[in-house]
Amino acid sequence: MKLFRYGAVGAEKPGMLDDDGGLRDLSGIVDDIAGDVLSDAGLEKLRALDPATLPQVDGTPRIGPCVGRIGKFCCIGLNYSDHAAETGAAIPDHPILFMKATSAVVGPNDDVILPRGSTHSDWEVELGVVIGKTVKYVSADDALAHVAGYCVINDVSERHFQTQLSGNWTKGKSCDTFGPTGPWLVTRDEVENPQALAMHLDVNGKRMQTGNTDTMIFTVAQIIEHLSSLFTLYPGDVISTGTPPGVGMGMKPDPVYLKKGDVMELSIDGLGTQKQSVGQDA
Amino acid sequence: MKLFRYGAVGAEKPGMLDDDGGLRDLSGIVDDIAGDVLSDAGLEKLRALDPATLPQVDGTPRIGPCVGRIGKFCCIGLNYSDHAAETGAAIPDHPILFMKATSAVVGPNDDVILPRGSTHSDWEVELGVVIGKTVKYVSADDALAHVAGYCVINDVSERHFQTQLSGNWTKGKSCDTFGPTGPWLVTRDEVENPQALAMHLDVNGKRMQTGNTDTMIFTVAQIIEHLSSLFTLYPGDVISTGTPPGVGMGMKPDPVYLKKGDVMELSIDGLGTQKQSVGQDA
Repeated sequence: MKLFRYGAVGAEKPGMLDDDGGLRDLSGIVDDIAGDVLSDAGLEKLRALDPATLPQVDGTPRIGPCVGRIGKFCCIGLNYSDHAAETGAAIPDHPILFMKATSAVVGPNDDVILPRGSTHSDWEVELGVVIGKTVKYVSADDALAHVAGYCVINDVSERHFQTQLSGNWTKGKSCDTFGPTGPWLVTRDEVENPQALAMHLDVNGKRMQTGNTDTMIFTVAQIIEHLSSLFTLYPGDVISTGTPPGVGMGMKPDPVYLKKGDVMELSIDGLGTQKQSVGQDA
Repeated sequence: MKLFRYGAVGAEKPGMLDDDGGLRDLSGIVDDIAGDVLSDAGLEKLRALDPATLPQVDGTPRIGPCVGRIGKFCCIGLNYSDHAAETGAAIPDHPILFMKATSAVVGPNDDVILPRGSTHSDWEVELGVVIGKTVKYVSADDALAHVAGYCVINDVSERHFQTQLSGNWTKGKSCDTFGPTGPWLVTRDEVENPQALAMHLDVNGKRMQTGNTDTMIFTVAQIIEHLSSLFTLYPGDVISTGTPPGVGMGMKPDPVYLKKGDVMELSIDGLGTQKQSVGQDA
């Protein structure tokens, strides 16, 4: 299933794609794509529906983040061996974790607004993992059974804020609009192998990132094992699993950063496409 | 006013102290100490009540975290000049920010449970700031008008997880139960000067931390100014503002860490007292 949320910011309704890719409304069935709806039982209930019997969604509404009531947004840094090689960084011994403020989360096609004074903002296409079941101290072998599904995330990053403001990375990752998430929450039964997904990101029509989750240093299962040794993961928690090569910070001969008017377009196999216009706060 | 939340985990009811320090129930007035209730208008409505007319709370219930639906839990590191001197760390140019997972938040007297394998867990008494009004790009001069109130926080920290697991500090700060918050949300009108609050923390009856918010490097107002330049702060966001000298990591001749059976007791002038027993996951 491909689940989504649509409508005005903060008032999104739940929906699912029908067999023809049409938008169908789930408001009569569930209140949101969130919480218990993400459990195996919750998803099974939706799977039992015939999408053709659901109301069609009128027009072309705004698509919101594909999961509601996100509790924590965990991000993994430097998790692609080819990206680590590109940056010259050492391969980490454990998944590098930082948090993105949940207030940064927006829909997949919402504008990305650079904060005042930002001159070093960058893109990062990433595989997002949405937790479906409460889990702690899980082994990698059992980890993926706790995943509701997968989605596209753009882990937008202000590099100066990230590294030059005496903070942890979270400063450069948590600006408003820096977490486009969606369009679809693709349930895990439709993702045969999360470690074999091609992905790419274009800026103004030029291909900047090309990668595949098969070069992840820590697999999705290993990441869940590690995080669940630190704290409980709950339904609706999101994990963004790192980015492949081609970020602006790594461009030669000079870094390239986002500016007002730029357009980012990014996609992961089977998970859909995002497209954002870039603005900036005056 | 001193507001609080009481009852079972995840099902806390709102309450306020009466003039004699008795617990009064606010369930008939508001649904939670959260969201719009934290605005000036929301607090004014509560202030207009005569607590003596509210139902008394029976017995001695569990006290929960003093604010509900926390969106983000921002923590400031190395923010006391005397603590920075103690650790030998340089004075930072900007407030050091890291995030504590909101899933770590517990009541002020709930058990603190060390995660499996933890041998380096430590205490940190801190002044907590609860945001009452949505705010972005605010100046320090105008910042405090956006605060609903203040509370005690124990920013429990696993030092090995914090510094040795290839993560940002968030790994050592986000373990379940590592965020005791409360007992009271003391509204800002009752805190004449947040930069003149004495605070202390005992472990097993021995005084470990003694400090005063007058040695903060960045004041509460300056912290809000800085964070609001990075992202929007919303009602119910919490900022923990750093810890004074006396953490276990800094003990001489050897560091001292928490172990099962320890008891922490911590207090800030006018904001109440927390007391936690320490356990550990097998």
